[in-house]
Amino acid sequence: MPPYLPHIDTPDDLKRIPVDELPLVCDELREFIIDAASRNPGHLGANLGVVELTVALHYVFHTPKDKLIWDVGHQAYAHKILTGRRARFDQNRKYGGISGFPRMAESPYDAFGVGHSSTSISAALGMATSQKLKQKGEEKIVAVIGDGSLAAGMAFEALNHAGSLKSDMLVIVNDNDMAIDPNVGAMREYLLSITTSRVYNRVKTNVWNMMEGIARIRRLLQRMENGIKSTLLRQSNLFESLNFRYFGPVDGHDVRNLIKVLSDLKNIEGPKLLHVVTVKGKGYKFAEDDQSLWHAPGTFDVPTGKICSTEGCEKLPPKLQDVFGMTLTELAAGNLRIVGITPAMARGCGMIHMQHAFPERTFDVGIAEQHAVTFAAGLAAEGMIPYCNIYSSFLQRAYDQVIHDVALQNLPVVLCLDRAGLTGEDGATHHGAYDLAFLRCIPGLTISAPMDSDELRSLMFTAQAQPAGPFVIRYPKGHASCCQWQTPMHLLEIGKGRMLRDGSDLAILSLGSAGQMAAKACEELALRGIHTAHFDMRFLKPLDEELLHQACSRFPKLITIEDGAIQGGLGSAVLEFINEHHYPVRLSRLGIPDRFVQQGSQEELFRECGYDVPGILKAAEKLLSSKEGI
Amino acid sequence: MPPYLPHIDTPDDLKRIPVDELPLVCDELREFIIDAASRNPGHLGANLGVVELTVALHYVFHTPKDKLIWDVGHQAYAHKILTGRRARFDQNRKYGGISGFPRMAESPYDAFGVGHSSTSISAALGMATSQKLKQKGEEKIVAVIGDGSLAAGMAFEALNHAGSLKSDMLVIVNDNDMAIDPNVGAMREYLLSITTSRVYNRVKTNVWNMMEGIARIRRLLQRMENGIKSTLLRQSNLFESLNFRYFGPVDGHDVRNLIKVLSDLKNIEGPKLLHVVTVKGKGYKFAEDDQSLWHAPGTFDVPTGKICSTEGCEKLPPKLQDVFGMTLTELAAGNLRIVGITPAMARGCGMIHMQHAFPERTFDVGIAEQHAVTFAAGLAAEGMIPYCNIYSSFLQRAYDQVIHDVALQNLPVVLCLDRAGLTGEDGATHHGAYDLAFLRCIPGLTISAPMDSDELRSLMFTAQAQPAGPFVIRYPKGHASCCQWQTPMHLLEIGKGRMLRDGSDLAILSLGSAGQMAAKACEELALRGIHTAHFDMRFLKPLDEELLHQACSRFPKLITIEDGAIQGGLGSAVLEFINEHHYPVRLSRLGIPDRFVQQGSQEELFRECGYDVPGILKAAEKLLSSKEGI
Repeated sequence: MPPYLPHIDTPDDLKRIPVDELPLVCDELREFIIDAASRNPGHLGANLGVVELTVALHYVFHTPKDKLIWDVGHQAYAHKILTGRRARFDQNRKYGGISGFPRMAESPYDAFGVGHSSTSISAALGMATSQKLKQKGEEKIVAVIGDGSLAAGMAFEALNHAGSLKSDMLVIVNDNDMAIDPNVGAMREYLLSITTSRVYNRVKTNVWNMMEGIARIRRLLQRMENGIKSTLLRQSNLFESLNFRYFGPVDGHDVRNLIKVLSDLKNIEGPKLLHVVTVKGKGYKFAEDDQSLWHAPGTFDVPTGKICSTEGCEKLPPKLQDVFGMTLTELAAGNLRIVGITPAMARGCGMIHMQHAFPERTFDVGIAEQHAVTFAAGLAAEGMIPYCNIYSSFLQRAYDQVIHDVALQNLPVVLCLDRAGLTGEDGATHHGAYDLAFLRCIPGLTISAPMDSDELRSLMFTAQAQPAGPFVIRYPKGHASCCQWQTPMHLLEIGKGRMLRDGSDLAILSLGSAGQMAAKACEELALRGIHTAHFDMRFLKPLDEELLHQACSRFPKLITIEDGAIQGGLGSAVLEFINEHHYPVRLSRLGIPDRFVQQGSQEELFRECGYDVPGILKAAEKLLSSKEGI
Repeated sequence: MPPYLPHIDTPDDLKRIPVDELPLVCDELREFIIDAASRNPGHLGANLGVVELTVALHYVFHTPKDKLIWDVGHQAYAHKILTGRRARFDQNRKYGGISGFPRMAESPYDAFGVGHSSTSISAALGMATSQKLKQKGEEKIVAVIGDGSLAAGMAFEALNHAGSLKSDMLVIVNDNDMAIDPNVGAMREYLLSITTSRVYNRVKTNVWNMMEGIARIRRLLQRMENGIKSTLLRQSNLFESLNFRYFGPVDGHDVRNLIKVLSDLKNIEGPKLLHVVTVKGKGYKFAEDDQSLWHAPGTFDVPTGKICSTEGCEKLPPKLQDVFGMTLTELAAGNLRIVGITPAMARGCGMIHMQHAFPERTFDVGIAEQHAVTFAAGLAAEGMIPYCNIYSSFLQRAYDQVIHDVALQNLPVVLCLDRAGLTGEDGATHHGAYDLAFLRCIPGLTISAPMDSDELRSLMFTAQAQPAGPFVIRYPKGHASCCQWQTPMHLLEIGKGRMLRDGSDLAILSLGSAGQMAAKACEELALRGIHTAHFDMRFLKPLDEELLHQACSRFPKLITIEDGAIQGGLGSAVLEFINEHHYPVRLSRLGIPDRFVQQGSQEELFRECGYDVPGILKAAEKLLSSKEGI
């Protein structure tokens, strides 16, 4: 039999296939995704888990008129493949290619742009409310959210509001009992108890029996509802407590049954929640067996499941994430006040090392950045030294908590911002572009950025050696520059940078890992006879004013370089210093320009933003050819 | 009988009073609070509601060893009065006086600093976890949170984590069915259903009966728990679903019973939640009758309940908040796509005008800033024009949503930031100090600030006239400068400022309401023979580069003034412009300095920060006496 997939360019093509043939389409989709991901790294497990659900949704609903909102969006590969992006799928997550997440500018089928978790119910409720206000109501609104994403407060806020607005919308909980790592929290235990509990399964059967004859007895059902259903269900289900009608759990891999259930639900009014049980990595044995590892495995060999570890291919230095995790473990061994906190990124940020060594002092709080920061503040208020590791772009979720619960209270919380700067293939939603600007304005913060793994270790050491207040350490995704990461840790003076290289023509002031590029550029410039001094600022706040006086009085021309938005970061701080002290200095500021940067390799993105080595050389030459004075 | 209150300087003094006399203490406390608030404006309703609960908590628990964490903290007057701050209470919320909220630096009894809502459970869990790690456990941890604050996602994140950690802590839900305005959302309906439902009251009786003999039968109870209780309760209660033991509802105004209940609960292990029903404004008839109005009524006459409206005392111009609300109503009448969104601040921000006129297009989403912004994004994605009004300091809660769900998606959401700049008596937690800095770095935002009510109206008009992307309008708490607020609305050119006054010696560039002070300073300077040009920038982003070229080429000396943090705001933006175009200009930047500013009147705080009229004069004179060039 000829394959179906090559002939599906829109959901309309899908709709022409008989229901009983859809399992074959699912098989083809799964094979396509595995094959593509094996060659071009991406998110695998979550995508394999929703193949049947995606097919069923596009089969039952009329996208793009009906709105389908994928929470987080790292499970939208099947959706993308079915909605006209199959041919371009080899360019998934690549520079200039399609995004790894739904993106409104990319396709009308991507009803809402995503990347961060737990936004889908809010957006869906906005769309459903718009339908109601326009008195149209013919567009159906569906949000698909994972059980991990349900832990974030934002999802609860949206459920709470939706339950009182009573708009028509369907929330599908894709329950695979996992976030990126195994899911945690009381809600997780609750969902698990539903799927296993006898009481709930009896209720479920009742609901299902009612569903069977739904078309005929809907009116009757609605009259009965206040009586039977509120006794049977409302009082006994968390979601029903919030005025959602709860349906499920149903098997998320039975595409025919999913179609039946969704077709029934489609015409029920008000806020509804369908609990779908799926298996992360479904259909690919290796991915089912180690779901964390196969969340985003990199390239791999399909038949053997052998992951082409970059570490295996060539002897690469360790990831900064591992240096973080192993250093934290080392520090925690010597300092019992240290605790580790991660919002659902134990593996990604390297906290897993400490989790293995000191499980009782390591807290994975789930996807709950706001709570993570204030939980850390509570620990610090009682004398602990929490290292709270949050990806830079996710710290945007806990911004108020950093200001209000940490900085204003002057508590010694160590905020470790992983994935700072341009992160690469995840694209615009995941770049840690703004942290320097949004943190610099907060009084009382110490803000540091290590240039390499040895500085990361020393900054981590310093943060706990003399805890005096909030301490930020921001560093990028990626590898250390040297395999010997187990360097001795030194107590660094707060607010003091260092001169890495002296010069006579020009000076570069760098912050954090961008200093690596600056150092290489200095070498290149030296070959061209341009002697460039290089200062590693190390701290954005407090600024090393002594170092800046030295640089500004010795060099009439300066370059600042930072892996962050240039509006408000290091370059702006240096300008403020120059202005305050009236130095006649000409400054060129390199960093992320004022626009959203899409996906690509870090190298490609640095180049695009003009702060890779050639970009620095260009800036230096332009600066040197300009006249003196400002 | 002699009064008790004058002899209570610490909770130990309270503990010496017999239980049966405590209702008298409560009466005295209530009288003290009413009297104090009648003369010195503050939060009234919430404080009257928790008098008995506060007395009971300090009677049963050993503060400050035991930790008492007040959520939001605008209900902590009785707490402050009982913990050594009675004598200083006339300086409540005043410049140099005590804070209107718990503040760690103020008293060891203030276990955690608060001001924003919904942080208490996270902080309490951090403290409880610290107890567990130190293997001490003798300190009891209690969080008191209102039903309104429970709507915020952060509280849910904390419950979700606490329910899985199983730390010893007590969460008291102070349920008065109100936030500042009447509470909304499904959770609110749920709490109401508990207090009124027959099923729950039966369960409650069961629990209470078990509580009676708690000391004797605790061991038995724990063995029975998996059997009876999980059938009776866990499946039937939202909080029990999250692994909290739920107790209540109990009457929050029966101090003797509260003491009995709290004494019993004190020794029960694990996470517990006590549902206490209170009346906002309890004991003061006028406050009970209009709870929103008496949340923070200003000064009033105690016997008659006559509020000394500032509008009544002298003919003041309208509040900007009313101008906002009435203008929005006016615009909404002419443009059916306009919707209004407020996270629980309908009265405070003036949205109440639109709520009365167009209830179906006005959404109070409860204390849920994250959801408010993404809900607005969903509405905008479907063609509506949402005006989402959030206090500047509360927008810190929705920072990621502004970046990720609004700016990156380029959706025409109008973000109206009320209470921008120094807000006054609420102090450090409530100043809208950082918005200019944290918003300026976000690509694609239009950021505006009206100097007065006529500009506020025109900016609001412009935002909906040609909706093209996200549009921020930030303005302060306070009154317009003129009684005639119903000025015609004009379409303003995006990114264009205006020259208000020409000059020859100096130029001032102002943003927003700070321009009022700049205008007055120009008058003063003119009297001294200094001719100062005044430019109202109107937009922080995009910057009016034409205006800046004009200012920088004509004036060697410039002052920027903004009611916001100087690190990263207008002053920094102008410096970046000057640097880019190599103008030999000397710039003095006025704004909020890099430290937390406490409470006081706005005038006192402007003075402290050096950007009131005398501050501008001083800066001008210093600048003029300096040499030319940078």
